[in-house]
Amino acid sequence: MRMVDLIHKKRQGHSFTTDELRYIIQGYTCGDIPDYQMAAWLMAVYFQGMTDEEIADLTTVMVESGDTIDLSGIRGIKVDKHSTGGVGDKISLIVAPLVATVGVPVAKMSGRGLGHTGGTIDKLEAIEGFQAELSNEQFIEHVNTYKMAIAGQTGNLAPADKKLYALRDVTATVDSMPLIASSIMSKKIASGADCIVLDVKMGAGAFMKSLADARRLANTMVKIGQRLNRKTIAIISDMNQPLGCEVGNANEVKEAIEVLRGNGPEDLQVISLTIAAHMTVLGGIYKTFADALHNLTTILQSGSAFHTFRQFIQAQGGNPDLADNPERLPQAANHIDITAWKTGYIQQIDAEAVGTAAMMAGAGRQKKGDAIDPAAGITLLKKSGDPVAKGERMAVIHTNKKTAEEALQRLQDAYVITEQPPQIQPYIHEIVC
Amino acid sequence: MRMVDLIHKKRQGHSFTTDELRYIIQGYTCGDIPDYQMAAWLMAVYFQGMTDEEIADLTTVMVESGDTIDLSGIRGIKVDKHSTGGVGDKISLIVAPLVATVGVPVAKMSGRGLGHTGGTIDKLEAIEGFQAELSNEQFIEHVNTYKMAIAGQTGNLAPADKKLYALRDVTATVDSMPLIASSIMSKKIASGADCIVLDVKMGAGAFMKSLADARRLANTMVKIGQRLNRKTIAIISDMNQPLGCEVGNANEVKEAIEVLRGNGPEDLQVISLTIAAHMTVLGGIYKTFADALHNLTTILQSGSAFHTFRQFIQAQGGNPDLADNPERLPQAANHIDITAWKTGYIQQIDAEAVGTAAMMAGAGRQKKGDAIDPAAGITLLKKSGDPVAKGERMAVIHTNKKTAEEALQRLQDAYVITEQPPQIQPYIHEIVC
Repeated sequence: MRMVDLIHKKRQGHSFTTDELRYIIQGYTCGDIPDYQMAAWLMAVYFQGMTDEEIADLTTVMVESGDTIDLSGIRGIKVDKHSTGGVGDKISLIVAPLVATVGVPVAKMSGRGLGHTGGTIDKLEAIEGFQAELSNEQFIEHVNTYKMAIAGQTGNLAPADKKLYALRDVTATVDSMPLIASSIMSKKIASGADCIVLDVKMGAGAFMKSLADARRLANTMVKIGQRLNRKTIAIISDMNQPLGCEVGNANEVKEAIEVLRGNGPEDLQVISLTIAAHMTVLGGIYKTFADALHNLTTILQSGSAFHTFRQFIQAQGGNPDLADNPERLPQAANHIDITAWKTGYIQQIDAEAVGTAAMMAGAGRQKKGDAIDPAAGITLLKKSGDPVAKGERMAVIHTNKKTAEEALQRLQDAYVITEQPPQIQPYIHEIVC
Repeated sequence: MRMVDLIHKKRQGHSFTTDELRYIIQGYTCGDIPDYQMAAWLMAVYFQGMTDEEIADLTTVMVESGDTIDLSGIRGIKVDKHSTGGVGDKISLIVAPLVATVGVPVAKMSGRGLGHTGGTIDKLEAIEGFQAELSNEQFIEHVNTYKMAIAGQTGNLAPADKKLYALRDVTATVDSMPLIASSIMSKKIASGADCIVLDVKMGAGAFMKSLADARRLANTMVKIGQRLNRKTIAIISDMNQPLGCEVGNANEVKEAIEVLRGNGPEDLQVISLTIAAHMTVLGGIYKTFADALHNLTTILQSGSAFHTFRQFIQAQGGNPDLADNPERLPQAANHIDITAWKTGYIQQIDAEAVGTAAMMAGAGRQKKGDAIDPAAGITLLKKSGDPVAKGERMAVIHTNKKTAEEALQRLQDAYVITEQPPQIQPYIHEIVC
C-alpha cells in the first residue's frame, strides 16, 4: 500500500477498506506517513466524505491507536455523556450525580477548556481541594463506592485523534462531518463506555450553526455507535444563547448546585433531565423515557442528587462545605455591569462572544497551559426574550483583572436588543436515535 | 494573512487576489509555509479549481519566485516550443533546426527525462562530445551565430514550481488543470520566450487521456499566455501510440536526422511541420500558416534544415560525422524481437508501456540521477493499423543488458492485435489559439 494511492483513491470518491484505514491511521500515528500526505488526505475526505462503514472503521482504528480504559471492574452498565461544546454548559455537573443517584455508575473522563468553552475539570477545580487526578484503580474504586467519579483523562487514549486534530486545525479541515464524528466517538469508546448519550449543540454559539448540520453530525455519531455495538442516543439542544445564567468556573458550579437542589434556570433543568432520562433508560434503570423523566424530576426536586454530588466532591478531596455554602466559592474582586443602551427585548445573546468575554475576564485559556482564575466569569441577568429598560443591568463581569475593557466590549456586542420580542427557541430541538 | 485562512478560502470556492497568491508561493518557496499546509491547499485547488485570472497570477508569482533568463541579447522574436510529454517525441530535434533555418532564433532550454518519457538533452548527448552546458553568454552567442542552441536549464528558474511539483507528486495533486498549466507556463516564461507553441499530447500514452481534458489544458495555457502578453498557440497531437518508430536516445536522434533529410515517418513530418509553421508565423517570418507550411515543407525536403542541425551539433562540441553517418551512433549489443502471437491488425500500442519498456532496456531513468544507456531503445516495426501475420516481427528491443525479460513482457503487452483494422487517429486533433 502506498499513501499517495490512498489519497488518490479518496480524491476520486472511492471508499476505503478497514485495512486501508488502519494503514493510514497507524502509519500516521507512528510517523511513517508524513503530515503533508495526511493533510492532502484530510482535504480529500473533506470534499468526498466517507460512508457510514468507513466512519465506523476510522473510529475503530483510532481507538486501536492507543490505550483503552478497562471499566469491567465497575458493576452495571457504564453510560457516558458527551457534549459537543457550548458556553455555560455545566450539564455534566448536574447529570452525573443525578443518574448516579438512581444507580447508573458514572465513570467520567473529562477535559480542560480551551478558547470560549470551559472544561468540566476546570469547573470542579474551583472547589478547594478537588482532585481530578485518579489512578485507574482509584477511579474504578470511587465509582463502585460513590457511584460516580470524574477524572482528567489518563492513559494515551486515541493518540491518532490528538495528532490528527492538531493537523486539521492548521489545514482548514476541522469542519468535516466524518472527522468530527469519529474524533468524538473514538475518545468515548476508548474511555470504556457501554452506552453513550450525546448532547449536540446547535445554534449561533455552537460549532453546528444549523439544524441540518447538527442532525447530520448526530446521525453520523449514532450510526458509529450502532456499528460498534455501543447503544447511542443524541439530543440536539439549543446554543443560540449561553446555557443557564452563569459562565465561568466557580459560578457555574454554584448554578449546578442550585439545580441539584431543585432550583435554577429552566433550560438547565430541562436539558439535564432529558439527558439523564436517556442515560438511565440505556443504563437499564427505567423501561421508558417517560418513566425515567417522571422519576428523575422527583429525585432532582428531593435534593438527593445534591447529596450524591456532595459525597463525590468529598471523596475526591474537595471541601464539602463549599457545596453546602457555594457563596464561599472563589469570588472576584471586581464586578462590572453591562447595561441596556435602549429599551426593548433581548433578541439574542451571542454565546461564543460571551464565552470569549469570560475567557478575557480570566475564566478561560487562550492557549493550552494558560492559568485560569476560578473566580472570573459572567452572570447573565437578562436572557433572550426578556424585556429591558434603557440603563437596566443585563449582565455582570466578575474579574480579578484591573481592566476588562475588551471583555466588556465583547459582552456588550453579544447582546442584540430589538423592539419586538424574539421567537423563543426550544431548549431541545430533536432526539436522534 | 494566515495560510489556514487561505486554505479555507479556496476550500469554500473563493478566488485569490494576486497578493494572496504571492503570499502563498513566496511563503512556500522560502519555507515559511510548511508542506502540510501547502498539501491541503493543493487538494483544495484540485477540487475547487481556479479562475483564468488566478491561474495567470499563479504563473506570474511562480516566475517571480526565481531567476528569469534575459534573451534580449538575441535578435528577433524568440519563439519557444513545449511538449507535454510523450513517447518517441523527438519533435524538438526536427523543429528547432527547421525554424532556425528560416530565421526564427531558437534559444531552447531543455530537460532530462524521467520515467517513461525521454528528455531532449539526453537524446542529444547520445552524440559523442555534445555539450549541453552553456553559460548564458555562450548560449546567446550561439543563437546569434548559429540561429539555434539547446542547453540544459541554467539558473534557478521557477523554484516554487520545482518544490510544488515534488509535493504534488506525493499528495495525489498532480493532475489539476490550473497547477499543470501554471507549472508549464511559468518555466517557459522564466526561460525568456516571447511567443510559445505548445504541443499538448492526447491519448492513451499521454497525461491527457481525453480530447476534452487536452482541450481544457490547451485553453488554460493559451489564456495564461494571452494575459501575460506572450502570444501562445497550442496544438493537440495524438499520443495513442508512440511517435515515429524509434524510442530511445541514439535511435531517436537517428530518426530525427532521417526527417531532417526529407524522409522518416509521416506522423513526425506532419506534426513537426505544423509546429514549425506556427512558430514561424509567430516569429514574423511568414504571414499565414498555409504560406509557412508550404515553404517549410520545401525546406525540409531540401535538406537545409539538416545542415543547420549539423552546424548546431558541431557548435556545441558534438561530432558532426555522427550526424552524417547516424549508423555510427551507439549501438546496443543485444536485439530482442517481439513477434505477433496471432494474425490480424495492430489495434493499438500503449505508448506508456513502450516508454517503460525502453526505460527498462536502459534508455531511461527510474529515478533522478540514474545513468542511461544511449544505445538502448526500441524500434517499432509495426504501428497502429498495420496488418501482421502470426510470428511476424512487430518490434525490436535494443539493450546492453543481459536479460530483458521484463521489458519484453511489457512491450508484448503494449501491442493489441485484433481481427478488424482499427479506426486510425489523426496526427493532430485540434489547434487552440
